[in-house]
Amino acid sequence: MRSPLQDFLDEVLDSVYPVTAGSVADYIPELARVDPDRLAVALTTVEGAEYAAGDTGAAFTIQSISKPFVYALAIADRGLDAVLEKVDVEPSGEAFNELSLEQDSGRPLNPMINAGALVVHTMVPGGFDRILAGLSAFAGRPLAVDEAVCRSEAATAFRNRALANMLRGHGTIGGEPRDVVDGYTRQCAVRVTTHDLAMMASTLANGGIHPLTEEQVVAPDVVRQVLSVMTTCGMYDMAGDWVSTVGIPAKSAVSGGIIGVLPGQLGLAAFSPRLDEHGSSVRGVALCRQLSDRLGLHLMDAPQPARSTIRRAHTVRHVAGEDAAVFALHGAIQFAGAERLVRDLAAADPDTVEVVLDLTRVHSVNEIAERLVRQTLTSLVAAGHRVTVVDPDRLLELADGPGLHVTGSLAEVVATPGQGERGS
Amino acid sequence: MRSPLQDFLDEVLDSVYPVTAGSVADYIPELARVDPDRLAVALTTVEGAEYAAGDTGAAFTIQSISKPFVYALAIADRGLDAVLEKVDVEPSGEAFNELSLEQDSGRPLNPMINAGALVVHTMVPGGFDRILAGLSAFAGRPLAVDEAVCRSEAATAFRNRALANMLRGHGTIGGEPRDVVDGYTRQCAVRVTTHDLAMMASTLANGGIHPLTEEQVVAPDVVRQVLSVMTTCGMYDMAGDWVSTVGIPAKSAVSGGIIGVLPGQLGLAAFSPRLDEHGSSVRGVALCRQLSDRLGLHLMDAPQPARSTIRRAHTVRHVAGEDAAVFALHGAIQFAGAERLVRDLAAADPDTVEVVLDLTRVHSVNEIAERLVRQTLTSLVAAGHRVTVVDPDRLLELADGPGLHVTGSLAEVVATPGQGERGS
Amino acid sequence: MRSPLQDFLDEVLDSVYPVTAGSVADYIPELARVDPDRLAVALTTVEGAEYAAGDTGAAFTIQSISKPFVYALAIADRGLDAVLEKVDVEPSGEAFNELSLEQDSGRPLNPMINAGALVVHTMVPGGFDRILAGLSAFAGRPLAVDEAVCRSEAATAFRNRALANMLRGHGTIGGEPRDVVDGYTRQCAVRVTTHDLAMMASTLANGGIHPLTEEQVVAPDVVRQVLSVMTTCGMYDMAGDWVSTVGIPAKSAVSGGIIGVLPGQLGLAAFSPRLDEHGSSVRGVALCRQLSDRLGLHLMDAPQPARSTIRRAHTVRHVAGEDAAVFALHGAIQFAGAERLVRDLAAADPDTVEVVLDLTRVHSVNEIAERLVRQTLTSLVAAGHRVTVVDPDRLLELADGPGLHVTGSLAEVVATPGQGERGS
Amino acid sequence: MRSPLQDFLDEVLDSVYPVTAGSVADYIPELARVDPDRLAVALTTVEGAEYAAGDTGAAFTIQSISKPFVYALAIADRGLDAVLEKVDVEPSGEAFNELSLEQDSGRPLNPMINAGALVVHTMVPGGFDRILAGLSAFAGRPLAVDEAVCRSEAATAFRNRALANMLRGHGTIGGEPRDVVDGYTRQCAVRVTTHDLAMMASTLANGGIHPLTEEQVVAPDVVRQVLSVMTTCGMYDMAGDWVSTVGIPAKSAVSGGIIGVLPGQLGLAAFSPRLDEHGSSVRGVALCRQLSDRLGLHLMDAPQPARSTIRRAHTVRHVAGEDAAVFALHGAIQFAGAERLVRDLAAADPDTVEVVLDLTRVHSVNEIAERLVRQTLTSLVAAGHRVTVVDPDRLLELADGPGLHVTGSLAEVVATPGQGERGS
Repeated sequence: MRSPLQDFLDEVLDSVYPVTAGSVADYIPELARVDPDRLAVALTTVEGAEYAAGDTGAAFTIQSISKPFVYALAIADRGLDAVLEKVDVEPSGEAFNELSLEQDSGRPLNPMINAGALVVHTMVPGGFDRILAGLSAFAGRPLAVDEAVCRSEAATAFRNRALANMLRGHGTIGGEPRDVVDGYTRQCAVRVTTHDLAMMASTLANGGIHPLTEEQVVAPDVVRQVLSVMTTCGMYDMAGDWVSTVGIPAKSAVSGGIIGVLPGQLGLAAFSPRLDEHGSSVRGVALCRQLSDRLGLHLMDAPQPARSTIRRAHTVRHVAGEDAAVFALHGAIQFAGAERLVRDLAAADPDTVEVVLDLTRVHSVNEIAERLVRQTLTSLVAAGHRVTVVDPDRLLELADGPGLHVTGSLAEVVATPGQGERGS
Repeated sequence: MRSPLQDFLDEVLDSVYPVTAGSVADYIPELARVDPDRLAVALTTVEGAEYAAGDTGAAFTIQSISKPFVYALAIADRGLDAVLEKVDVEPSGEAFNELSLEQDSGRPLNPMINAGALVVHTMVPGGFDRILAGLSAFAGRPLAVDEAVCRSEAATAFRNRALANMLRGHGTIGGEPRDVVDGYTRQCAVRVTTHDLAMMASTLANGGIHPLTEEQVVAPDVVRQVLSVMTTCGMYDMAGDWVSTVGIPAKSAVSGGIIGVLPGQLGLAAFSPRLDEHGSSVRGVALCRQLSDRLGLHLMDAPQPARSTIRRAHTVRHVAGEDAAVFALHGAIQFAGAERLVRDLAAADPDTVEVVLDLTRVHSVNEIAERLVRQTLTSLVAAGHRVTVVDPDRLLELADGPGLHVTGSLAEVVATPGQGERGS
Repeated sequence: MRSPLQDFLDEVLDSVYPVTAGSVADYIPELARVDPDRLAVALTTVEGAEYAAGDTGAAFTIQSISKPFVYALAIADRGLDAVLEKVDVEPSGEAFNELSLEQDSGRPLNPMINAGALVVHTMVPGGFDRILAGLSAFAGRPLAVDEAVCRSEAATAFRNRALANMLRGHGTIGGEPRDVVDGYTRQCAVRVTTHDLAMMASTLANGGIHPLTEEQVVAPDVVRQVLSVMTTCGMYDMAGDWVSTVGIPAKSAVSGGIIGVLPGQLGLAAFSPRLDEHGSSVRGVALCRQLSDRLGLHLMDAPQPARSTIRRAHTVRHVAGEDAAVFALHGAIQFAGAERLVRDLAAADPDTVEVVLDLTRVHSVNEIAERLVRQTLTSLVAAGHRVTVVDPDRLLELADGPGLHVTGSLAEVVATPGQGERGS
Repeated sequence: MRSPLQDFLDEVLDSVYPVTAGSVADYIPELARVDPDRLAVALTTVEGAEYAAGDTGAAFTIQSISKPFVYALAIADRGLDAVLEKVDVEPSGEAFNELSLEQDSGRPLNPMINAGALVVHTMVPGGFDRILAGLSAFAGRPLAVDEAVCRSEAATAFRNRALANMLRGHGTIGGEPRDVVDGYTRQCAVRVTTHDLAMMASTLANGGIHPLTEEQVVAPDVVRQVLSVMTTCGMYDMAGDWVSTVGIPAKSAVSGGIIGVLPGQLGLAAFSPRLDEHGSSVRGVALCRQLSDRLGLHLMDAPQPARSTIRRAHTVRHVAGEDAAVFALHGAIQFAGAERLVRDLAAADPDTVEVVLDLTRVHSVNEIAERLVRQTLTSLVAAGHRVTVVDPDRLLELADGPGLHVTGSLAEVVATPGQGERGS
C-alpha cells in the first residue's frame, strides 16, 4: 500500500516546482554549476520512516547546515560551558557572514553565523576527522568531502579568513587563521543528499539517537541546546518571521539545503539551489512553510499530551477480593502527565482501599514525574490505601514496604477484568 | 491529600527567597514603594488546576506583560496581516524602550518593545475599554486600573512620548501622540495578581480558551502568533539565553512579573520586584529556570507523542466470525500519530480481512491527520479489507460505503475480547 | 565702475541656474509653496563690502542656519564648558533629524543636529526674545518670525517632539518638551534674506563683529568654537566631502539657504529651495563649490602670511649719525610673522648698532608674537644693540630703558631715507 | 642670539613632562620596549626654520602617520578620482582598526582608518620602493625600515589581515591579502625622528614643496585633499574635539608620534609613547593643544590677509608730469587681496589720470585675482585713466595697449618720490 503521505509530499513538491525566483549561489564556479531546477524534500520520523519526493539522492555540499551538528559535537566533547564561554547564543539580526562579535570580547554572537561556526570548528578535539566521523554518525552512513568544491571555496574564502583573523586578533581562536578557515571550508564541503539531511535532522528530533543505527550520537541535553539555538539563530535575519510562520528549529545552507527538526517527532529536509536575499533556498523555505502549515508541525500549535497520558483508569476485581482502582499510564511520563495522575489519584474514592498503578506501557519517567508519583504513593499509603505498582521495567525503583507492593505483571493482581472504565 | 506539586513549589520558592540581587524599578515613586521581598509563583494547567506558592494574591501593575495579550486582541480584531503591516516580528537585540524602527519605514521591529506595543495599542478597535475587557477575559475576572500608578507614569512617560512622536512622524500611528501614550500607560497600569497572570498564561497555553470560564478569548492561530513572538522577542536582549535555558515563550514586566506558556500544558507566573539589568525580575527568572529544568518544561525536551498515540493494536474476534485487527487511538491525533497509524495499517496482515479503527478515545483529529486516515482507509478497502470505524463523535464525518462501516460503539463489532495484543 | 566681482557672481549664478535636480521640502505646506526656481548668492567681506546676484532680497525662514548662531549665543551667555557638558562636538555621520545621543548620557553628539540644537535652544537665558535679538544683531537689522511657517511647523513637529521627550527622559533638558519644541520651531521660523545670511556669515568671519554696525555680537573665542563645529558637523553626513571640495565652515537649511564663513575674509550665502538627499540646497551647494574653487577660498589652500608680514627691512641713516637697520612690519602680527621677524633680527648685522622696529602699519599683535618680539628686543640690547621701537599705537606697551627707546614716529629717528632695501 | 621660540618650546615641553597618564602600545614586544618617558617636540616653518626641544633625534616607527603621506602619493600617481572611487573621505567616528566599510560597497570610509590605508597602500604604483622613496622625499632624507618592528608586527597583524581579507572579498583590493598586509606593515615600520616628522609636516604646509630640498613632492591640490581629510578624519573618534581645541589638520600614530600642519605656515611634530584611549599620545596631544593655543595656530582664529595685501597706496609725481596714484601690493595675491584692490581702484580719484599698479613685491597671483585685476584695469582704461603696471616677474602676462603700459621698474615712472601716503 502506497502511503498517502507520499502522495501528499508529491503534491507539495509539485506546488513549489514552478517557482523560479531567487538565484543560485555563484561565488565559486563549483556552486554555480548546479542545476538550479533540482528539487527534493524528505521527512523522516524518529522511528526512521522516511517519506520523500524529488531528487532526494542528488548530492550537494552541506555548507552551513554543518553548523548545528558540529556545534553539537563541540558541546558533547568540551561541555556546554566551555563552548558558551567562546560563543554566545543571541540572535544577531544579521546576515550569515557578518562579524557580529560582542563588543570588546571578540565572542561571536552565536554559532550559526560564520564567526561563531569558525570558533566552534576549532573546539572539536580530533579536528576534521572527528567532525567528519560525527557528521557521518548523524547521517548514519560514511560521508565524504567534495574536494572540488572544497578547493574552490578555500581559494576564495576571503570573508571567512577575515573573520578568522579578527577572531585570532581577539584571541578567541588560536593557531594560524588560514588553517582554521581551511578546516572549516572542508567541513562545509561534506557531501550530503536530501535523504541524509532528513536523517540527520531526525537524529536531532530523536534526542540524539539515530533512528536506524540507534547510535546515541550526542546526549539529549546537547540536542536541546542545539535546537534552542537553531530556533533563535538558525535562519539569520528572518528568525522572527520563521518562528511565526514555520515554527520549527531549522537551518539553511547556501547550497540550497534546509533542515527542520520537530523534537520527538521528525526531521525534514529540502533542497533547491535558488536562494532568496537571506541566502536561504526559495523553494526550500516554501516547502517548509507548507509542511509546517499543512502537517500542523508548528511548535506553538499545542499538542495535548496532558490529556492523553492516563491510558486507563478503571476498576477491577483485586485478587485480594475487593474492588481495586487501576490507573494505567503509557508513553513517556513527564510533568504534565504526572500532574494529571497525581490529581486523579488524589481524587480517588477513599473507600476503594486497593489502588493499582500500572506502568506496563510506560517507557520512561522523568525526574519530576518520578518525584511526584513517589510522593503521591506515600500519601496514598498514609491515607490508608494499599498500593500495588505494576512496573515490569523497574522504572520507579520502588521496593515493597508497608502498604506498598511492587510487581511485574498486572495479571498477578487482577482477579477478573473489570468493567466500567471511568474514562480519561 | 496535599499535592506533592505544592511541596515542590514551596521548595522552589524557598530556594530563591534568599536572593536579594537586583533593584526595584524606581522611575516613578509608585513602583519604588513596592515591598522588594514580595515573592510568588503560580502554575496553572490547561485544565485550570493551579499550584501556587508565596504572595500570589498580591496585586501589582501588569506593565509589559500586557503586550502579548493586547497583541492577541489586535490580531483577533484586525487580522494578522493588518498588524504585521505596522509591526514586524523580528528580535531587536535591544532593551525594551529602544526605538528599533526599521530603517525608513517607521515599522517597529516587534510588538514586545515599547515602540511596537504603542502601535499595537492603537490597533485595538474600541480603545481602552476593549483592551480592559480583553485582559479581563484572559484572566477570567474583571480587572481594574491602578489609578495612582497610571497618573504617576503618565506624568513622566517622556521616552514613550518620544517613541509615539517618532511613530507619528513616520505616520505609523495617527492622532495625538500624547493620547496614545496615555492610553498605553493605562493599559500598563492594569492591576493583576500572580494568580491572574498564571491564569492568563494558561489561557494562551490552552489555545485561547480560558480553562475555567471556557471562553474562547482569541482563536488558536492568534495564540500561535503570540507565542511565536514571545519566543523570539519576549525577553528582549536575552532571547537566545532564555530559549536555551528555559525554553518556553515568556514575557517579563518592570513591575517584577513574568509569565511563561507551555502550549497545551500550562501557564506559569512569577512575581518578585527586584530587576536584573535586562529589566526582568531576578528571582522571577530564577524561578522560571528552576521550573523549566526540574519540571522538564523545555520545548526542545522532546515529548514523544508519536509513540503514544496508538493506544492499542490488537486482534479481536469480529462479530462476523473472523479475527479482526483493532487499531485503537486516543488523544488528539495530529501528524505524528496519523503517520504512525498509517504505517501500522499499511503493515497490517493482508490476510486479516477485518480491520477496526477505534476512535472512541480520540478527542480531535486535525486536517492532515484526517486526510491521511481517510486515504489509508480508501487504500485498505481497495486492497480488499473490510473496514469498521468506531467513531462515536463523528470526528471523521465518514459515511458507510462499499467495504466501509461506521459505527458508534466497539461493542457492536466485537464478538469476544481478543487476546494477544500486539503491542505498540 | 562696476566691480568685475559682480560680473563673476552673475556668471556663477547663470551657470547653476539651469540645474533642476532635487526637490523642495514639503513636510509642511508653507515650505512647499516656495517658488523652486528662486536663486540667490551673496558674498560679504569682513569690511562689509557685499557682492550679490539673484533674488538676494527674497525672504525665507532661517531653519537650521539658526543653529550655529544660537550656539554662539548660548556659549556667550553660559560659557563653553556649560554648553559642552550638555552637547558634544563630534560629527554624527547622520542626518539632521536623527537622535545621535551618546550612549546612556543623553548628550547629543553635536549642536548642528536637531537633538543638539534643541538643547542649545534651552540654554540661552532670556529665551526667544534674546535669541531673536541675537540673530538680529548678527544680521545687523531687526529680524522677525514668519508666523505662518511657525504655526504650520509647530503643528507637525513630531520628530522634534520625539527628540525633546527623549532628551527630557534623559534629563538633558528640563521643563515641558512641547514648549521647548515650540520655542525651537519659532527660532527656525525667523525670516531672513540671502543678504542677511551673508552679513551674518561675515560677522562670524570678522571675529564676531558686525562689519557695518561694528557691534561685537559674540567674542572671537566663541566664533572659533562655532566655526570649528561648523567645519566638522555643519553639513551633516557629507562633512568629509564638503571639507575636501569646498573647505570652508558652512551650514545649510531645509528652506534652501546655505552659509559659508572664511575666517578673516568673508561670509557667503546662497539660496535655492530644491534640496539634495542630505537636505542641502542642490544649487546652493553647487554655488559654494564654484565660489570656493574659482575664488580660491579653500582653507587648505595655503595663504602665505609668513612671507608678507615683514614689510621692509632696510637701512637708513639714523639721527644719531650711524646707519640703522629698519624692520618695518604691517598687518596683524601673529606667530608666523613674529617668527620671521625674530629670525631676521637674529641674523641682523652685529656691526649695525642701531636697530629700528617700525610698527606704524601694524594693527594688532597677538600674545605669542608680543612675547617673541619682547624677548628678541631684550636679546638685542644684551648683545649691544641700541633699539628704537616705533609704536604709535603702543601695541607692545614698552617703556624706555637702557638701550631701548620707544617713539611714535619714524621721522624722529631717520636722518635721511636710506637706499638699498634688503629684500622682502 | 638664542631664539625666544626655543625658550618657549623648552617651557612647553617642561610643562607636559610630568604627565604620566596613558600607556605604551604593547601589542608587540618591540613597541612595548620603548622608553615611555621619551618626549620631543619640533616645529618647522615653511621656510625650513626648525625649533625643537627634547629627544627630537630619537627614532621610532612612523606607523599611522604614514597614512596621509601615502594617501598623497597615491593621489599624485593615480589621480584623485581613482582614489576616491576606492576610499571615501567621511569621518567614521570609530577607532583606527575598525572595519567602517560602506554598506555593500566595501569602500572604506576614509584613508586614515586601517581599512582605507590598506587600500591606499595598494594604489601606489611601484609598491613599497616608491612608498619609501616618497616618504623619504617628504622628509628630505633617505628613510629606512625598522626590520625588527616590521617582522614582529607582521607576525601578529591579525586585524589588518582580517581587514585585507574583507576588502579582498569585496574586490576593493586584488592580490593576496597577506601580501598587502605585509607591505602595509612595512610602510608602518619606516623609522623616523620627531625632526623628520616636523619636516614632513612642513612639506605639506608648504604646498608639497620640501622647505630645504625644494623638491615638489606632490602638487598643491594633492596637499589640499590630504589636509582636508586630516581635518575631519585624522584624529579618529576625537575629530570634533580636536578641531575645536587644536584646530589644525593632524595625524597621530600608535608609536607615540603626532603631526600637525598649518597650511602656509608650519609643520609640527611631537613624540611621547604613552597613549590615551583613542590611541594618540597623551603628552603629544597636550603639546599640540598648548602650541595651538599659545602660538595662536587655530585655523579658525582669523588671520587678516585682506587688510595687509595693499602695501601702499600713495601719490607720486609721474614722469609724465602729473600726479600718479600708486597702488603697491605684496605677497601672494588671492581673492581677498584682489577684492580689496579692486575696491580701492574703483574708489580712486577720477581726476588722477595716471594710475600705477606696483607688483614688484608680489610673488604670486592666483586665477581669480588675475581675472579681477585684469578686468579692473580694463575698466580704468575705459574710464579714461592711463595705467602703468610695474610687473618685473610678468605675473599678469599683460601687453602694452591703448592706455596701458607694462614696465619692469617703478623708477621708470616716478619723477620724484611722493609724500603723503594715504595709508592702507
